[in-house]
Amino acid sequence: MGMTMTQKILAAAAHLPSVEAGQLIEADLDLVLGNDITSPVAIHEMDKFTKEGVFNKDKIALVMDHFIPNKDIKSAEHCKCVRQFAAKHDITNYFDVGQMGIEHALLPESGLTVAGDVIIGADSHTCTYGALGAFSTGVGSTDMAAGMATGKAWFKVPSAIRFHLVGKPSEWVSGKDVILHIIGMIGVDGALYRSMEFTGEGVKNLSMDDRFTIANMAIEAGGKNGIFPVDDLAIAYMKEHSQRPYKIYEADEDAVYDEEYTIDLSALKPTVAFPHLPENTKTIDEITEDVVIDQAVIGSCTNGRIDDLRCAAKILEGRKVKKGVRCIVIPATQKVYLQAMEEGLLKTFIEAGAVVSTPTCGPCLGGYMGILAEGERCISTTNRNFVGRMGHVNSEVYLASPAVAAASAVTGKISAPAELGL
Amino acid sequence: MGMTMTQKILAAAAHLPSVEAGQLIEADLDLVLGNDITSPVAIHEMDKFTKEGVFNKDKIALVMDHFIPNKDIKSAEHCKCVRQFAAKHDITNYFDVGQMGIEHALLPESGLTVAGDVIIGADSHTCTYGALGAFSTGVGSTDMAAGMATGKAWFKVPSAIRFHLVGKPSEWVSGKDVILHIIGMIGVDGALYRSMEFTGEGVKNLSMDDRFTIANMAIEAGGKNGIFPVDDLAIAYMKEHSQRPYKIYEADEDAVYDEEYTIDLSALKPTVAFPHLPENTKTIDEITEDVVIDQAVIGSCTNGRIDDLRCAAKILEGRKVKKGVRCIVIPATQKVYLQAMEEGLLKTFIEAGAVVSTPTCGPCLGGYMGILAEGERCISTTNRNFVGRMGHVNSEVYLASPAVAAASAVTGKISAPAELGL
Repeated sequence: MGMTMTQKILAAAAHLPSVEAGQLIEADLDLVLGNDITSPVAIHEMDKFTKEGVFNKDKIALVMDHFIPNKDIKSAEHCKCVRQFAAKHDITNYFDVGQMGIEHALLPESGLTVAGDVIIGADSHTCTYGALGAFSTGVGSTDMAAGMATGKAWFKVPSAIRFHLVGKPSEWVSGKDVILHIIGMIGVDGALYRSMEFTGEGVKNLSMDDRFTIANMAIEAGGKNGIFPVDDLAIAYMKEHSQRPYKIYEADEDAVYDEEYTIDLSALKPTVAFPHLPENTKTIDEITEDVVIDQAVIGSCTNGRIDDLRCAAKILEGRKVKKGVRCIVIPATQKVYLQAMEEGLLKTFIEAGAVVSTPTCGPCLGGYMGILAEGERCISTTNRNFVGRMGHVNSEVYLASPAVAAASAVTGKISAPAELGL
Repeated sequence: MGMTMTQKILAAAAHLPSVEAGQLIEADLDLVLGNDITSPVAIHEMDKFTKEGVFNKDKIALVMDHFIPNKDIKSAEHCKCVRQFAAKHDITNYFDVGQMGIEHALLPESGLTVAGDVIIGADSHTCTYGALGAFSTGVGSTDMAAGMATGKAWFKVPSAIRFHLVGKPSEWVSGKDVILHIIGMIGVDGALYRSMEFTGEGVKNLSMDDRFTIANMAIEAGGKNGIFPVDDLAIAYMKEHSQRPYKIYEADEDAVYDEEYTIDLSALKPTVAFPHLPENTKTIDEITEDVVIDQAVIGSCTNGRIDDLRCAAKILEGRKVKKGVRCIVIPATQKVYLQAMEEGLLKTFIEAGAVVSTPTCGPCLGGYMGILAEGERCISTTNRNFVGRMGHVNSEVYLASPAVAAASAVTGKISAPAELGL
């Protein structure tokens, strides 16, 4: 029986000629990731079972991003714990204030993730690196601890769903709309513990940033991972950002998929996930009533990359954020920030009446930098709209693309760019 | 008996031919200020004693700056309270995310404070506007409530200390060093309930931003207010920023001062206030041991203006923040942010390895955006270094100028620019 792309990677990492869905394997890890929330727990766990050091100081990435610059004493203590651990073990890839960025934007940009890698991260959106043809998945802090100590992890080999992409999205339709459409179609548990494998000639019509967004939200359909074929665009991205050798795996022609869907990208419309689940999607033309907003957030590991900011700036250029709306733009990394500044995007945001934050996960998980009061409503390019996710239990988050979030910031209600004549 | 400059302003505002120290007066207010921490209390108090509206919707400024973009649900609820009050009373000068800035930088820049004004603000650093020749002072939230309702406030007329400035400060000596020197000299209660009146030919050698810094920290010597004569530079500043008429008051020649000091600006050296009081000052050459730092903060109502950022950028240009040091730069207002961006200063900061925050009071008062863990040490351009001010009760804050903070960020220990060959 043929293997899926994910299975091919896992078989190689487990030094096995082949694997099949449901099989338990032990795989070598190319990277173990933790952040300022999850690493302290992993560090304490690791201390319990080993006095040895880490398996490889170059293959661990510790990224301070959720609550930094530290939002309170507790988060400061967490960062201090990780900082001391990184110093003690001479961790090469420790990222603190100044070198920082949101982990899932920072690692590909820093060249730490390439095709063929097996990556675990103590953060659910670790699945992002599938955009480069890596197997990457979120784990708990104890698995992170074991990974840091041994360089290995156990996996149950996942089966897969294939999403065959055809066609080209129209101007204001992006990766976010693609993945929201899919989650709306299959539900938040539609891909539970399965690989979401994206294939087809439509892939070439998606930018790398689109692909990162799509792979990033595989977990929002319950997916074990999301993964894209490695095409010229992906290779060019890796060559630009990384010194590491990459390895291309392709699904066997006779690979078996639990389900297969064909998605015509040209038929997709700007899509919004209503509270309180990412599966509660409506296309923009299905929203018949005014959904007035208090805040718009443009950023996060899902949509804080340069393409995202360019798109938002195109809409905000020469326009003003509606009075009464707080528009918060958060470049995902220092590099994105600098590039956005050099391209004049940050100027556009400020002149439109938005604020630009230093890179942080911040509001996405109710951390800081835009928490909602009771009854408030936010349109956000982030990835989750669970009850209370961005603040008060009686606040609401609507998930959308940077284009829709920016257009909504201007009109003060959930809007397509078309409503601005774009 | 002659009147001081402050007394002249208060007499006019109380419609009295003259006033004297100790006298109780009722003065008309030109502006009543509150922020996101103090305004909710004032609003609740005002609701208790009046059903009438505010005395003048154009003479109230409500600035959301301490914890915004909202750092948590509580701060979000506070802002919501103020936002609703501002909408209900049609307050002209309500500043939220996007128009925002740190109140004491924002109000002069927005033209809301000019010479001759009487201003109360529910924030201790309201004394800042004395740089423009206004009488301005911090009050509690209940006084703010009464001020918003009636447009008047009671004052006990202060006596004064005169600081006669002569000479010109050397390159890396700024307003911050002047005021730290004075506080070191007279102590944190050295000017208790008294006006600090700055005079002399040395004033012309201080930029407006220097003067704002000096007046801002009058409260750190216990001063009721700090005030500068209105010279050509101050007039030019007001003409550039304000449409409002200003009125120039001068101290009588026979005005009586409790104390008089002559300060030779040319003799001052970069000065640092050690924990845990602003009066614990040492000049940079008195610091004989290495004081290793974990963080440098450049910003706040004291030192987040364009001159401050220019100074810090001059030092960070082509240099790198020392590994292990977090350097956080916080432009005080959106306008300062934009200007710093256009002048290339933000690029310099990012390239040096600093982060740039959206305008906020943030770390100064232990709010967010750089809170300290146990045992950590920060050099900061803010105004207070009390126990636990920026985080853990066992953390330390050292107050300094932007020049010293930037130089220290590069060396990793408290340093003068001279140590970098500057």
